[in-house]
Amino acid sequence: MKNYLDDTAYAEYIFDKFYSVGSAANGGVTRLGYSKEEDEMHEIFKKLGEAEGHIYSEDEVGNSFLYNKGQKGDCYLIGSHLDSVIEGGRYDGVAGIITGLLILHWAELDKLSLPIAVGAFRCEESSNFGRCTLGSGLVTEEVYKQDIGELMSVDGRLLKDIFKEKNYTLHPKKISGIKEYIELHIEQGKVLEEYNNKIGIVETIAGPRRFYFHINGMAEHSGATPMDMRNDALCGAAELILEIEQAGKEEAVYKSVATAGVVRNYPNAMNVIPGEVLLGVDIRGVDASSLDRTENRIKTAAKRICENRGLTYFRETISSIPPIKMTQEMQLKLAAAAKKLKLSHRVMMSGAGHDAMSFAEICKTAMIFIPCEKGISHNKREFTSIQNICDGARVIYEYLKGEAYDSD
Amino acid sequence: MKNYLDDTAYAEYIFDKFYSVGSAANGGVTRLGYSKEEDEMHEIFKKLGEAEGHIYSEDEVGNSFLYNKGQKGDCYLIGSHLDSVIEGGRYDGVAGIITGLLILHWAELDKLSLPIAVGAFRCEESSNFGRCTLGSGLVTEEVYKQDIGELMSVDGRLLKDIFKEKNYTLHPKKISGIKEYIELHIEQGKVLEEYNNKIGIVETIAGPRRFYFHINGMAEHSGATPMDMRNDALCGAAELILEIEQAGKEEAVYKSVATAGVVRNYPNAMNVIPGEVLLGVDIRGVDASSLDRTENRIKTAAKRICENRGLTYFRETISSIPPIKMTQEMQLKLAAAAKKLKLSHRVMMSGAGHDAMSFAEICKTAMIFIPCEKGISHNKREFTSIQNICDGARVIYEYLKGEAYDSD
Repeated sequence: MKNYLDDTAYAEYIFDKFYSVGSAANGGVTRLGYSKEEDEMHEIFKKLGEAEGHIYSEDEVGNSFLYNKGQKGDCYLIGSHLDSVIEGGRYDGVAGIITGLLILHWAELDKLSLPIAVGAFRCEESSNFGRCTLGSGLVTEEVYKQDIGELMSVDGRLLKDIFKEKNYTLHPKKISGIKEYIELHIEQGKVLEEYNNKIGIVETIAGPRRFYFHINGMAEHSGATPMDMRNDALCGAAELILEIEQAGKEEAVYKSVATAGVVRNYPNAMNVIPGEVLLGVDIRGVDASSLDRTENRIKTAAKRICENRGLTYFRETISSIPPIKMTQEMQLKLAAAAKKLKLSHRVMMSGAGHDAMSFAEICKTAMIFIPCEKGISHNKREFTSIQNICDGARVIYEYLKGEAYDSD
Repeated sequence: MKNYLDDTAYAEYIFDKFYSVGSAANGGVTRLGYSKEEDEMHEIFKKLGEAEGHIYSEDEVGNSFLYNKGQKGDCYLIGSHLDSVIEGGRYDGVAGIITGLLILHWAELDKLSLPIAVGAFRCEESSNFGRCTLGSGLVTEEVYKQDIGELMSVDGRLLKDIFKEKNYTLHPKKISGIKEYIELHIEQGKVLEEYNNKIGIVETIAGPRRFYFHINGMAEHSGATPMDMRNDALCGAAELILEIEQAGKEEAVYKSVATAGVVRNYPNAMNVIPGEVLLGVDIRGVDASSLDRTENRIKTAAKRICENRGLTYFRETISSIPPIKMTQEMQLKLAAAAKKLKLSHRVMMSGAGHDAMSFAEICKTAMIFIPCEKGISHNKREFTSIQNICDGARVIYEYLKGEAYDSD
């Protein structure tokens, strides 16, 4: 096995290859799922793998895979994604892909007798189509059993049209030959940093419940309409935004969170009272009854606010994913590997969704987190060190070595 | 003079010529200031005038004028605009232009010895550049003394670039040769309808005070950031929106109104806590001290809310126009004309801004209102009858006949 200095050098080399793709004026990156920037990321992934002599393949929805040569049997899949949010950071997803490439590299050097695959899944972020984990969700048939071809990208293209153009299918055959799925991801929170831990072993992934409120009032002249004759949709939305925040705060003890992340105001002009507002709500947690209470409180508030203001509304469910548990046996082994490497760890929940959710129902699945500075993510200031990535990768590789020797 | 049936037929003919320009899918019209749709409106205006034998001219900022032939001396300018808000109605502005064409038509039939001009002013609505009355404000040098070339249209073009392309100038010579300015406009409120009056004589136009709040928080992952660690810019904006509404309500007795009409949320994604919000505020009234109180209350609230939430903000002033009084002598004569025609009238304020504001400082200026159904305006459902327009036009024409005979 190569020495540690070389590992960070290789990890940095990979990071730099991806660096400039989708660079935004503000310093972040925009690599939306199923955009040309994401295509470019996958192209780089392919070239990186081929340069190392790995076997490359692409599936029917554009997910990319690299395998180590000469191995037989169901593989250990190290997965993550290469897309980003709008003006996001350069570590979310990419850290997991660097991990996979490091592990393949080490496995080749060590001539490890274990089939390993690295999977780069498409469109993990919901920023482009309002839904997360499209690539992994489609091939595991877990998340997207229903037809999602009508989803529209932020630049107004239908998913089915993009798929047609790229020769992908919305109904791919189910992925097979996977023994276990393991993902490394930046924490996107502050827990590891606060407790000064190097490794997080994920116990449960909070499933997002998402819906849109379509609120309708009356668009009228802002100068000529007295205050008591208005049906201002934005004022109604403002009340609801504060209720959503309050609902999250009251359930904080159960680790639930509630966010109004999307607002589209209409016609959005200085001289017109807002007549129509779209409000996007995201609720997450690991406690189902807390999630129910949060959701119900928000629904009740919407009804009350709109009735009081003479507004109408309807609610559109976008997703409702239950909390997902990771495989306990893998958690224990990964914790033991971290301990062996003298990297302090803690068992924790994931507030964010990940591709691991798609695999949890079809195979043994685990996730590990590494710290990111101040917990900042989905932001140009997102940062983790290359050493953190290498440390996380070493924990997974240590685990895989254990698996290889067990099966010997 | 032609009989009444012919007048409505001519008014309808004009209305129909404009009807389809900028038709929106929802049934309204989008004819933004300095857009090709507005150009098309001005082209139709020119053709309508030339068909009647009027003299046409365009000024240095794209305003269009029609004059009756063979007249000498400073003219009576009947003005309004041909642009609209986004998906607005077909009467706002157009009613005043139809009025002008009717009056020119009658003046020619009657061989009235009075110089009359009809002016169609550019970009009266603030929907495209965030500022109102650009065309009339530029040529009267009242509103836009400062350079406004950096204003950006909703589709991201700079005003100076549009002007360069069209060979307009941002520093036109001041309009001259105007004796009086008179404008007819739909009320855009419910007062005339409620009191069953046919004509409103405007006493004062409420001047809009407009500003943007730029609110900055921290864009973080919506699933992984606990509720008590957030700096959610949209939650801060929501509190401020409700304060703006409350400020307007408390000053309603002084006829002030306050509206948050514009909100831009950033990055506006389901899985990201809003990090940045732009909020556009419009305050109007006729009582300067009430306007001061409203503005101060909103400023104080912004400071308090942002401090409490760990947000930063800055305020950008867009416009601050004082309430503008119409010429009293003209109000009295127009009221007498309405009375003579047996059209019930009332003296009232204008909550909305109009091109008349630009002229009030350079010449005698008056405005009359006609009712519009349920007060709805800036909305596809905006409606007034052609008869209302003809009635309003007859009041102005009656006034002008008085002026012609006085000067004989």
